[in-house]
Amino acid sequence: MSEMTSTQVTTASGRGTPARRPLPDAPFLAAARGETPSRVPVWFMRQAGRSLPEYRELRAGTPMLAACTDPGMLAEITLQPVRRHGVDAAILFSDIVVPLRAAGVDVDIVAGTGPVVANPVRSDADVANLPLLDPDQVSPVADGIRLLLGELADTPLIGFAGAPFTLASYLVEGGPSRNHERTKALMHAAPATWHALLDRLATVALTFLNVQVAAGVDAVQLFDSWAGALSEAEYREFVLPHSAKVLGGLADAGVPRIHFGVGTAELLPAMRSAGADVVGVDWRLPLDRAAARLRAAAPEAAEPVVQGNLDPAVLFAGSSVVAEQARRVAAEGRAAGGHVFNLGHGVLPDTDPDVLTRLVEVVHEQPVR
Amino acid sequence: MSEMTSTQVTTASGRGTPARRPLPDAPFLAAARGETPSRVPVWFMRQAGRSLPEYRELRAGTPMLAACTDPGMLAEITLQPVRRHGVDAAILFSDIVVPLRAAGVDVDIVAGTGPVVANPVRSDADVANLPLLDPDQVSPVADGIRLLLGELADTPLIGFAGAPFTLASYLVEGGPSRNHERTKALMHAAPATWHALLDRLATVALTFLNVQVAAGVDAVQLFDSWAGALSEAEYREFVLPHSAKVLGGLADAGVPRIHFGVGTAELLPAMRSAGADVVGVDWRLPLDRAAARLRAAAPEAAEPVVQGNLDPAVLFAGSSVVAEQARRVAAEGRAAGGHVFNLGHGVLPDTDPDVLTRLVEVVHEQPVR
Repeated sequence: MSEMTSTQVTTASGRGTPARRPLPDAPFLAAARGETPSRVPVWFMRQAGRSLPEYRELRAGTPMLAACTDPGMLAEITLQPVRRHGVDAAILFSDIVVPLRAAGVDVDIVAGTGPVVANPVRSDADVANLPLLDPDQVSPVADGIRLLLGELADTPLIGFAGAPFTLASYLVEGGPSRNHERTKALMHAAPATWHALLDRLATVALTFLNVQVAAGVDAVQLFDSWAGALSEAEYREFVLPHSAKVLGGLADAGVPRIHFGVGTAELLPAMRSAGADVVGVDWRLPLDRAAARLRAAAPEAAEPVVQGNLDPAVLFAGSSVVAEQARRVAAEGRAAGGHVFNLGHGVLPDTDPDVLTRLVEVVHEQPVR
Repeated sequence: MSEMTSTQVTTASGRGTPARRPLPDAPFLAAARGETPSRVPVWFMRQAGRSLPEYRELRAGTPMLAACTDPGMLAEITLQPVRRHGVDAAILFSDIVVPLRAAGVDVDIVAGTGPVVANPVRSDADVANLPLLDPDQVSPVADGIRLLLGELADTPLIGFAGAPFTLASYLVEGGPSRNHERTKALMHAAPATWHALLDRLATVALTFLNVQVAAGVDAVQLFDSWAGALSEAEYREFVLPHSAKVLGGLADAGVPRIHFGVGTAELLPAMRSAGADVVGVDWRLPLDRAAARLRAAAPEAAEPVVQGNLDPAVLFAGSSVVAEQARRVAAEGRAAGGHVFNLGHGVLPDTDPDVLTRLVEVVHEQPVR
């Protein structure tokens, strides 16, 4: 694959919806569909970005959200880990606040802090004023996806969006929060306001994912990073209907839908029932136990497919530990009956990229069944 | 109860181990022993401290760890929430790093950050140099406990210590950590070093708790705040033996032993098996489901007693929501078969103290069985 520069590519951003690439042999797509892949597919959440020196070089001087909406830069950053590690899927370089910012919300990503929202959303009036997303507002992302399709050969491209709850948490708190107290207070004290907010955010997320699907992504992942802060009862009442609107809205899109959150061992069946084809699992619950939990909760449903779940902190423990833990995860994935190898959360910033490359090799040596 | 000042009390700190107070009717102790209490007992983790204006006034100008080792001040801070809220137990005002600092570790609590360790512990030599605790080094805490026994009337006093894993996390990382990558790397890459470190920390925690028990506390809680960052397999291999050394070392002390961590729904049976009489549960898992999980894991054991688990964030949602959620927790506690009412984590700093006072009233109106 050739290296693209920002300049080269912003001028090359054409329009028009390409047909989705036929990728019948892609291991990632086979596994995500519940079929038997030719090898254990592996990709890493946050593989595109901060752990790679070539990323830091390319991004130097460019703010995060500008990089996410520069077609050439987002395409190049998305490609970098595919070239370097030989992973089985590319994940679109983006951020969960990209559609909010594109719609006109005053949000920025502050280095070392995370997303910061200038005017927190806490009242009915705030919710009514929250702009919806016009597809044209994220056309640079669609342009980037079209560039990627020409470069990725037979590697599938995963699109993504932040789920309504996690987006709401940033909007209500005004930024990252450890305890989500304002978010939970709004949810419980003003449920009508809460549901109106989440419905709006579901519309935004669905619009963004529809743009990505129309541009040609081969799968989507809905990230509900903070869902694990909730009890199952709260999740089912206050969150699930809205995530179901997003995932259900993509039921006929023809792409596998992955649904992931951290610390969600108790929520996995609910998160699946929102409309997920693949359920992401963090490192706290072995994949075979996660699959058993999903099966028990929906015995009539298709066999569950799980994704995960090597602890990203283990990547700091040296190559023999990484290989040993990767073999364990793969064995648990086989026992689960279907499996996409991933980390249990995103790649940590200080991760040595060579460790990820060797991990891909180890995963590819594991038996599929 | 009279208000004590620091000056008054440091001079009053006598020695000699008092007999433990007989408190046959204390609802907290009855519930903790698995008996039927006269009312639903309630106390709050972090009830002593930052949410109270009288605390902030008293603490003004005194560093955190100095306050924890001033007998009069720690006694007064411990008493404040008992006077104000009418809770069924006092929890010793302390911090998990108090025994480390007392033993000579260069650790301080930095406002807005948390514990910061000057020389992180990462090698065999670091572990060998880690000082053990001499009971005399925490005599101010024992003095404070003796002062408290004279003031608390029939309210039980809960002592506490940080569990080996959570202490290790601060020592290895050098301070608070979101992902615990150095801690987990050490655990997996150098298990002998890891176990030596945790064994030493277990000795420190047990020494500290033995001092508290000898001084007259009526129960103890072992806080393993970060245990929820681990998978069950990691917990059982790398942590449980050491927490079991602490709790097992108190088996004959004649006081109920509470064991608590956040995000530990998958770890509850393991945490009980470490030697807990009462298992603390955060807000993510209903108490009746927690008890069912404990029962299923140890069908031959005594009926489990659980503690928790109102989400501290709910205290920001207004009085009717708080009352409704408190009634739900109490009902789940009854369904669990035995229950100490608490929050699912510590009181958040911005909590309105009046909300806590009303919550105690609501809990005391709930039926016991």
